[in-house]
Amino acid sequence: MCLAQCLSDPLLAGQSTVTSPLAELRAGIDQADDELVAVLARRIRLTAEVGALKSRHGLPLYVPEREAQLLAGRREKATAAGVDADLIEDILRRVMRESYSAQGTDFPAAGDCSRAVVVVGGGGALGRCLASFFRRSGYTVRILEKDDWGQAPTLLADAGLVLVAVPIEHTLAVIAKLPQLPDDCILADITSIKQAPLKAMLDVHGGPVLGLHPMFGPDIKSLAKQVVVVCAGRDAQRCQWLIDQFGIWGAVVREELPDRHDRAMEMIQAMRHFTSMVYGIFLQRENADLDELMRLSSPIYRLELAMVGRLFAQSPELYADIIMAADGLPALLDQYRSVLDGLLKRVRNHQRAELIEDFNQARDYFGELAPALLRESSELLRKAHDASSPLRAVDPGPGTTRKA
Amino acid sequence: MCLAQCLSDPLLAGQSTVTSPLAELRAGIDQADDELVAVLARRIRLTAEVGALKSRHGLPLYVPEREAQLLAGRREKATAAGVDADLIEDILRRVMRESYSAQGTDFPAAGDCSRAVVVVGGGGALGRCLASFFRRSGYTVRILEKDDWGQAPTLLADAGLVLVAVPIEHTLAVIAKLPQLPDDCILADITSIKQAPLKAMLDVHGGPVLGLHPMFGPDIKSLAKQVVVVCAGRDAQRCQWLIDQFGIWGAVVREELPDRHDRAMEMIQAMRHFTSMVYGIFLQRENADLDELMRLSSPIYRLELAMVGRLFAQSPELYADIIMAADGLPALLDQYRSVLDGLLKRVRNHQRAELIEDFNQARDYFGELAPALLRESSELLRKAHDASSPLRAVDPGPGTTRKA
Repeated sequence: MCLAQCLSDPLLAGQSTVTSPLAELRAGIDQADDELVAVLARRIRLTAEVGALKSRHGLPLYVPEREAQLLAGRREKATAAGVDADLIEDILRRVMRESYSAQGTDFPAAGDCSRAVVVVGGGGALGRCLASFFRRSGYTVRILEKDDWGQAPTLLADAGLVLVAVPIEHTLAVIAKLPQLPDDCILADITSIKQAPLKAMLDVHGGPVLGLHPMFGPDIKSLAKQVVVVCAGRDAQRCQWLIDQFGIWGAVVREELPDRHDRAMEMIQAMRHFTSMVYGIFLQRENADLDELMRLSSPIYRLELAMVGRLFAQSPELYADIIMAADGLPALLDQYRSVLDGLLKRVRNHQRAELIEDFNQARDYFGELAPALLRESSELLRKAHDASSPLRAVDPGPGTTRKA
Repeated sequence: MCLAQCLSDPLLAGQSTVTSPLAELRAGIDQADDELVAVLARRIRLTAEVGALKSRHGLPLYVPEREAQLLAGRREKATAAGVDADLIEDILRRVMRESYSAQGTDFPAAGDCSRAVVVVGGGGALGRCLASFFRRSGYTVRILEKDDWGQAPTLLADAGLVLVAVPIEHTLAVIAKLPQLPDDCILADITSIKQAPLKAMLDVHGGPVLGLHPMFGPDIKSLAKQVVVVCAGRDAQRCQWLIDQFGIWGAVVREELPDRHDRAMEMIQAMRHFTSMVYGIFLQRENADLDELMRLSSPIYRLELAMVGRLFAQSPELYADIIMAADGLPALLDQYRSVLDGLLKRVRNHQRAELIEDFNQARDYFGELAPALLRESSELLRKAHDASSPLRAVDPGPGTTRKA
């Protein structure tokens, strides 16, 4: 229907004929949303009770099979009711996150609560976060900070676990400084590299040793589904309770060899931090107009900018140390740079066919993972788009001419 | 409570005492979810009726103020009911996406439907997508493909809009090939660069000319909130109906000068595609173990890998052409490379203080945007984490020892 026809539509002559049915429909939507809030409040209360019950009985908080089964059932019911199955799954997953956070009350202990958990550097954000989980499971947690070394022998005398949680550049020195620990005490660390700290821990302690790399930041409210990488050091059997403890908290434990872990982290963590830092500093030196870039961005470029910009809201020391601690990084960056130079030459020489050939080789290497990652990230971009603030989206930046 | 205590808990002696209240609570959750599905089905039906009503009367589908107002009201009600305000907002935004897709039935036309819309290269994905929007608004849409040039003069004789939607490397040649258009016909293109196509269009056509860059892919179901960049060519007044048309479809129109647009696109689109391609080819040449990288990834590294991997599920030609068409790219990459070399030298020489200083300068440049981007991306990462498949998350990869 053309606008001209619309304008001659008798229904539009007096606005009331449109607004009245519209007002009625909107009242119905308001009513539906009230019910939505009420049913969500009830659901969250019920899951909190489930959490409390499970916790009292030492049942695992996060049971993947139950969750998958529940979602499959709800998808079917939604489809039957004419509601998109992905919609109900997305909503329930979002509600479950809320529930997991709310359930984080008391988790049983997998180890011996009569023995202390000593967090070395427990004043740091991640140390504090882990300390609170141990406390909630009934362990006595002691913090050993810079100024407490005089009392270290007393603090450590009855320790069942010593967890080194200091910044990466102090890890080795702190481990070397530890006094004698009880023979059966686990010595563990949470550094983001694993070979050097493990070697240092095995050197100073003859008992059980475990390397941990929690793949999350201190801002999480629940450990449900969070990945913890574990590298065996010594005496796996006596380390098992600690691994079980992370399982009870809901974490997913992945075991890996220290050298393979470190190599993988250099490939993703150190390389991505470094190249993001390069890109951010590049934008700064080019004096790019960030507001303009944001204003013209599609969700994907906005996300690209976010992945870079977010770095600069965080600790420079942390990133410098992660980058500097990656022994293999300079060699990897030489390789990266030579790939960059090779592709740049293609661009300069207008070798389109050769550039496409390079692309195709990488496509073969990514194989089935590429379309899977495309699907996954596209769905995430749709969520980013949902969340885009409508008022921000139409914020009339310089030059915008959209009619109101 | 320790596990030892749990095991001696009389409640656990017979499982029934745990499972029975658990079963009861779960039945309550099932019931709540049934109601949730029912209320969602009703809400979607109601918004579809609103969409149909608006469409009949030419009212805009997407009214940012109404959406913001609605969300603010629901947040208040949720808080009053003890439900987290962000939870209800996330859910409603997800539901609204569904509603916008469902509402995409008939949009009124802002232009003259008696004049044809001719999409040159309408066989391509984005051309087809836009053609379908014009059709749904009542325009007669004609497609001019490679083999149709013989009939071009006939096809174009009564055109009110000619939209060039061919791959970027053919854009200029196709524009040059166009026969004489009606004087008042808009000539527009959707190429991702704007200076050269605009110049070419102004050369061949004396009437209204407009450069468009839709910042979305052909997989969208609704134009609601999607950004379209518009570069003025000639006769803004006679181009206005086309801009209005995008507004009726729900898009957000942002006007920009062609050179500023192209520079911004080089800075984000071309640079990010290029460096992502470099990273992907680097991983391939290092023969990195992708399964291992995925298995050890936190949500943020998984997303970093996804942003790279997704590239290789898409058209090599498209990316090669975007990169090759960016005239300023080689010079930008020289700058990028010199930043990379400078930082790499810092790393090699262990100049931690200098690296931190470089970081801090970029932090000052990003200013308030950095924490905003951190918040935005962290929330998105939480959503990615919600969506992580629980069965995939515990998939026992090589070396995993988690006890069942």
